[in-house]
Amino acid sequence: MIRRTVDDSLTYRDAGVDLEAADRAKRALGPLLDAAGDENTLSGPGAFGGLYAVPRGMSEPVLASSADGVGTKLKVAFMCGRHDTVGRDLVNHCVNDILVQGARPLFFLDYLATGEMDEAVVAEVVGGVARGCRENSCALLGGETAQMPDFYAPGEYDLAGFVVGAVERERIVDGGAVCAGDRLVGLSSSGLHTNGFTLARKIVFERMGLAVGDRFPGEDASAAEVLLRVHRSYLAPVWPLIERGWIRAMAHVTGGGIAGNLPRVLPGGLGARIRLGSWRVPNVFRVLAEGGGVATEEMYRVFNMGVGMIVVVSPDREAEALGALGDGARSIGEVVRAPGVELVGGVP
Amino acid sequence: MIRRTVDDSLTYRDAGVDLEAADRAKRALGPLLDAAGDENTLSGPGAFGGLYAVPRGMSEPVLASSADGVGTKLKVAFMCGRHDTVGRDLVNHCVNDILVQGARPLFFLDYLATGEMDEAVVAEVVGGVARGCRENSCALLGGETAQMPDFYAPGEYDLAGFVVGAVERERIVDGGAVCAGDRLVGLSSSGLHTNGFTLARKIVFERMGLAVGDRFPGEDASAAEVLLRVHRSYLAPVWPLIERGWIRAMAHVTGGGIAGNLPRVLPGGLGARIRLGSWRVPNVFRVLAEGGGVATEEMYRVFNMGVGMIVVVSPDREAEALGALGDGARSIGEVVRAPGVELVGGVP
Repeated sequence: MIRRTVDDSLTYRDAGVDLEAADRAKRALGPLLDAAGDENTLSGPGAFGGLYAVPRGMSEPVLASSADGVGTKLKVAFMCGRHDTVGRDLVNHCVNDILVQGARPLFFLDYLATGEMDEAVVAEVVGGVARGCRENSCALLGGETAQMPDFYAPGEYDLAGFVVGAVERERIVDGGAVCAGDRLVGLSSSGLHTNGFTLARKIVFERMGLAVGDRFPGEDASAAEVLLRVHRSYLAPVWPLIERGWIRAMAHVTGGGIAGNLPRVLPGGLGARIRLGSWRVPNVFRVLAEGGGVATEEMYRVFNMGVGMIVVVSPDREAEALGALGDGARSIGEVVRAPGVELVGGVP
Repeated sequence: MIRRTVDDSLTYRDAGVDLEAADRAKRALGPLLDAAGDENTLSGPGAFGGLYAVPRGMSEPVLASSADGVGTKLKVAFMCGRHDTVGRDLVNHCVNDILVQGARPLFFLDYLATGEMDEAVVAEVVGGVARGCRENSCALLGGETAQMPDFYAPGEYDLAGFVVGAVERERIVDGGAVCAGDRLVGLSSSGLHTNGFTLARKIVFERMGLAVGDRFPGEDASAAEVLLRVHRSYLAPVWPLIERGWIRAMAHVTGGGIAGNLPRVLPGGLGARIRLGSWRVPNVFRVLAEGGGVATEEMYRVFNMGVGMIVVVSPDREAEALGALGDGARSIGEVVRAPGVELVGGVP
């Protein structure tokens, strides 16, 4: 080693990485992460990897796993300086992606990458992730907070997450039992969830010229509040139906809309007919369509349009399923003997 | 819905998101991902979540999981337009993080976020991830490729990953059995691995004024080749020792260097004495220290300095362990009855 103490000596901190700030941020997260485990969590926050016991009592446990991000919804969080909701978006998105296969979440890990380490922002973001995990009864097993100067603009970050859940092999929901004539039950979304934000931001902040704090047309809320509404987790309403074995397939309506997602869980040769007008398209989508002059087809291709999850049930289960799912559920169409998704009917 | 077909109508593509390019990129990845499963993989690439059967024959399976990124090593990949190595870095880093707990990897998921979707770059990056998974006998179960305009500079992306492995509960390596007097065996790194790149780039490209294609001092390789050397996976050399039960603790030397990582796996009250000079510090670190005028302490705090993994064994196992681990292994110190890491001895 060459030891030098000249004036132009470089340190990691000179180069833009502050290990002390990273340590402080980690310590600040300690209590959050200590409380984030459950009875199967076998590791503490300082471990290289998180350890989680496969739940006992399952005969053929299958792990279901998904990776996702929050997309440019993060930009809205940056614009208004509110960082406690995007973590819940992230967890709920991931949880829904394995729920559609009949799996319950076990644990979650996050990846947070920033340019400069702002400890308060990191704590707010990870606090949101931890809350999302609690709300889904899932352990926050670990995560990575990366300092990447020259990568992210000041005040910006990216956030990704990974969920692992479990399902009994014989109870995997894979759409194999779906038949023509099966009914589609749509569950209401809370808003844009985490898709279409590049277009939505362009419309709201450029075309319509709103500021984040301005009242959003037709709502008693600001633009930021409307756009940041948290992605719904469908675990609580849907789980009882999964346990009863009523569900033949489920589709999480994310990027690509209903037409981009529902066919992913239908057997070959089958498609869906969706009745427009069978649910009320929420105000936010009507404002976006008008504000951006976006064609109806494009709106349905980019956004969830008010339906965040679709559950496929046999015709004789439809009434019971609607009853069990409650207010936000609507009969929105049926499975047909033709591939693809056809949107029929009038203006909602 | 308001249907408008006026000239100023916006589409998702106008806003910067190209769903067709995303679909093409996904299709191009299809064959890669089809070949990326193993006998426990139960889902195809189109599924919302990946499905993976818990391996049979384990009595108390515990899942070990870790999330990580590649850090600003990515910037070197951008500078030289080479995108097939960073995926291997990512997988190997994650695999090492659960290996230190005695776990073998089962499956992996990646998160790739770009500004614009360049299908060729996406295929190169994910191809590297797939190769890394094959090299570690681990399934590539899924992943997310996010298009985030206004987020990443043109030609840039971020890459994170997430591994899940398994270990029998009674065979978890947790450092609990470590005693004062135990020996530290260091395994050679291939170079910087994935840490310290913000400082290394500043030294090499600013202070030393090298271009990526310039010959790196003291090496028969370019600056890009030296800096992009792939993070080593220690699974193959270390696994036989884990199976024999010889290993009392293991530390993956990442951000924070030896002093930042070894104490994470030592019981309270114990520390380590590391003999400088017991291994040869590779040329790249000596060039960085001189080129940046970086103090020795700072070098050891930021970089692995040639030791990428430390294995703790009892004194009577040391010779056998060194023999089994082969050429890249060195006896580098011992566990002592004082917390912290002390670097002793001369200039290597």
